[in-house]
Amino acid sequence: MNEVAVLGVGMTRFTKAPERSFEDLGHEAVLAALKDAGVDRSDVDAAFCGTLEAHPGIGQRLLKGLGMTGVPIVNVENACASGSTALREAFAWIRAGLSDIALAFGVERLSTSQKGLVNVGQKDHMWESGLVLPAIYALNAKRHMELYGTTEEQFAKVSVKSHANAMHNPYAHFHKPVTVQEVLESRLIADPITIYQCCPSTDGAAAVVLASGAAAKRFATGPVRIVGSALGSGKLNTRAGVQAELTARTARAAYEMAGVEPGDVDVAELHDAFAPGEILYYEELGFCGAGEGGAYIDAGRSEIGGDGVAVNPSGGLLSRGHPFGATGIAQVAELTWQLRGQAGSRQVEDARVGVAHTMGGTVFELEANACAVHVLAR
Amino acid sequence: MNEVAVLGVGMTRFTKAPERSFEDLGHEAVLAALKDAGVDRSDVDAAFCGTLEAHPGIGQRLLKGLGMTGVPIVNVENACASGSTALREAFAWIRAGLSDIALAFGVERLSTSQKGLVNVGQKDHMWESGLVLPAIYALNAKRHMELYGTTEEQFAKVSVKSHANAMHNPYAHFHKPVTVQEVLESRLIADPITIYQCCPSTDGAAAVVLASGAAAKRFATGPVRIVGSALGSGKLNTRAGVQAELTARTARAAYEMAGVEPGDVDVAELHDAFAPGEILYYEELGFCGAGEGGAYIDAGRSEIGGDGVAVNPSGGLLSRGHPFGATGIAQVAELTWQLRGQAGSRQVEDARVGVAHTMGGTVFELEANACAVHVLAR
Repeated sequence: MNEVAVLGVGMTRFTKAPERSFEDLGHEAVLAALKDAGVDRSDVDAAFCGTLEAHPGIGQRLLKGLGMTGVPIVNVENACASGSTALREAFAWIRAGLSDIALAFGVERLSTSQKGLVNVGQKDHMWESGLVLPAIYALNAKRHMELYGTTEEQFAKVSVKSHANAMHNPYAHFHKPVTVQEVLESRLIADPITIYQCCPSTDGAAAVVLASGAAAKRFATGPVRIVGSALGSGKLNTRAGVQAELTARTARAAYEMAGVEPGDVDVAELHDAFAPGEILYYEELGFCGAGEGGAYIDAGRSEIGGDGVAVNPSGGLLSRGHPFGATGIAQVAELTWQLRGQAGSRQVEDARVGVAHTMGGTVFELEANACAVHVLAR
Repeated sequence: MNEVAVLGVGMTRFTKAPERSFEDLGHEAVLAALKDAGVDRSDVDAAFCGTLEAHPGIGQRLLKGLGMTGVPIVNVENACASGSTALREAFAWIRAGLSDIALAFGVERLSTSQKGLVNVGQKDHMWESGLVLPAIYALNAKRHMELYGTTEEQFAKVSVKSHANAMHNPYAHFHKPVTVQEVLESRLIADPITIYQCCPSTDGAAAVVLASGAAAKRFATGPVRIVGSALGSGKLNTRAGVQAELTARTARAAYEMAGVEPGDVDVAELHDAFAPGEILYYEELGFCGAGEGGAYIDAGRSEIGGDGVAVNPSGGLLSRGHPFGATGIAQVAELTWQLRGQAGSRQVEDARVGVAHTMGGTVFELEANACAVHVLAR
């Protein structure tokens, strides 16, 4: 199968930008990625757009505005994993020999969304009775506390780290440090989750240019490759009520394809839409054992410069922001910068292997629409 | 690259079924395809859902109702080519070695749609000033008449053939023959297109089970394979104002992958959303030369039993119906039945090579979102 290289990445600043259209946001990200890749618009032979809320035909309309017509364009939707799914499709086409240079991008506008966050569509009795995403994460957090003695302070530290990292990321939504006390004292959303532990409503776009190994040789870009890719769906809660099995299973598949172990991972962008999730996903991604997530953050192991996996150096969903369709692509942008050594004051030293992880939505009875894990390496 | 086999196909009857949900329609089609394939639900390792108007997460919700959870599920949107695009993604994953047994399905409910046919999303000044799809096809028809002397009767004959074929298809929306005179005297929609030359608003679903060549050997199904697949986008009108270049270019790519010539094609399901389109696409798919489409239908060459390519034996979009997300998959179902010799009284004798062709939407300045061409062979 063809090797898949990352030629270039680009993104808008993630922020509230109600005055900007889907197209306007997307154009900035796509042009930045093409420039970073050093490829012409006419070099791209396939395009994939991830979005939850943009209008039908968004990929085509957006690219039409850049004069990029003629190529196959596919719009994908997988809730909060829409961007990761667009990436996965580009990966699949290149691997299958159906594309040499593919563009994957995602765009979302949430600051003015009329649909309510994570619009899962039709009637869902659990959703309507209040079991929305922060509540689901809150239940998982409570269960984790009960099982393992994890504390509210440990969850709050995720947000503190996230905000601290985002201070060094010009693309991040928030540029404001917070303390554990401020996080704990902020407005309660779903006990124990406070508002500083919830991702904001962000507008933004991100794009990545991928290439087959053969095509990549024509361009003088860095050596970053996508070496593992997995997509799954399934139950959120299977380990004694703690969100678990889906991420663990999907990560195993991605690691296996990549030929890496969790211990090989230097840097990760993972799905911290709500702060307790990050603790749970340390465990499910194999960065530490079950129940050890609280100690992991206490010891600073997930910080930039810590002795574990540096997690969410970009600020993650919590502080970089989470425009659904763009998030999975922005993760890959951050990892690419990290693996190239271009991450400036948030650089993870000598990062060689990076992992991107997103979750997408929930459907009836706590089934998740999607979990995507990608492994990047140089 | 892996070979891609068609293990099984299934569909609902295409009809007005306002009482049926997306999920209900989809379940019937998916179960029929699995039964036809002889595979268990647990054998499927990836799923792709095409739809324009269904709610987010439709693929996941629909499969959850069948207990099919855990596998990667991708929702795709490409206007009227949404189903074909789902098929294309399943093809890509199998070819890339990312899936062994993939399910592609599509679903749409148009009889009660509140969005207006082919909702292309945000503001489009051409659309708002009346250049909607029947008008676009009408302008192409008029131009074809002027350039080549094509007649209104020839366009009407497409509808007559379509309705005649659908009489033999239990899945078709219409089971009612029409005459040339009835077609011409029916209500004018966009001169010269009358209402009997427009596809109806149909509800329905269709599904196909694909497998890698290796996986297919485990099942005692027929020998149908997908040997060519191409997806494109681009200008609708480039040949002196006649809809042209996009279909011709996409077909060439699919034929090349398949190693076939237009002269090898025995049967085709093509995008006759409006009757004149069928004449134009005879030419663009290479079944006859430019300007010869009118004579092609006059001579009965595209009829079942004609000496050309039997076109739309199912009744096509005009008479089988056109529930957007389901259409591209239903075409593949029909071609599979034809290539297996299971098409009953509408069987095309000794059909060995079949072509499926869909167009998807329009965006600004008459750019089409998508054109998909698949070549099936036994």
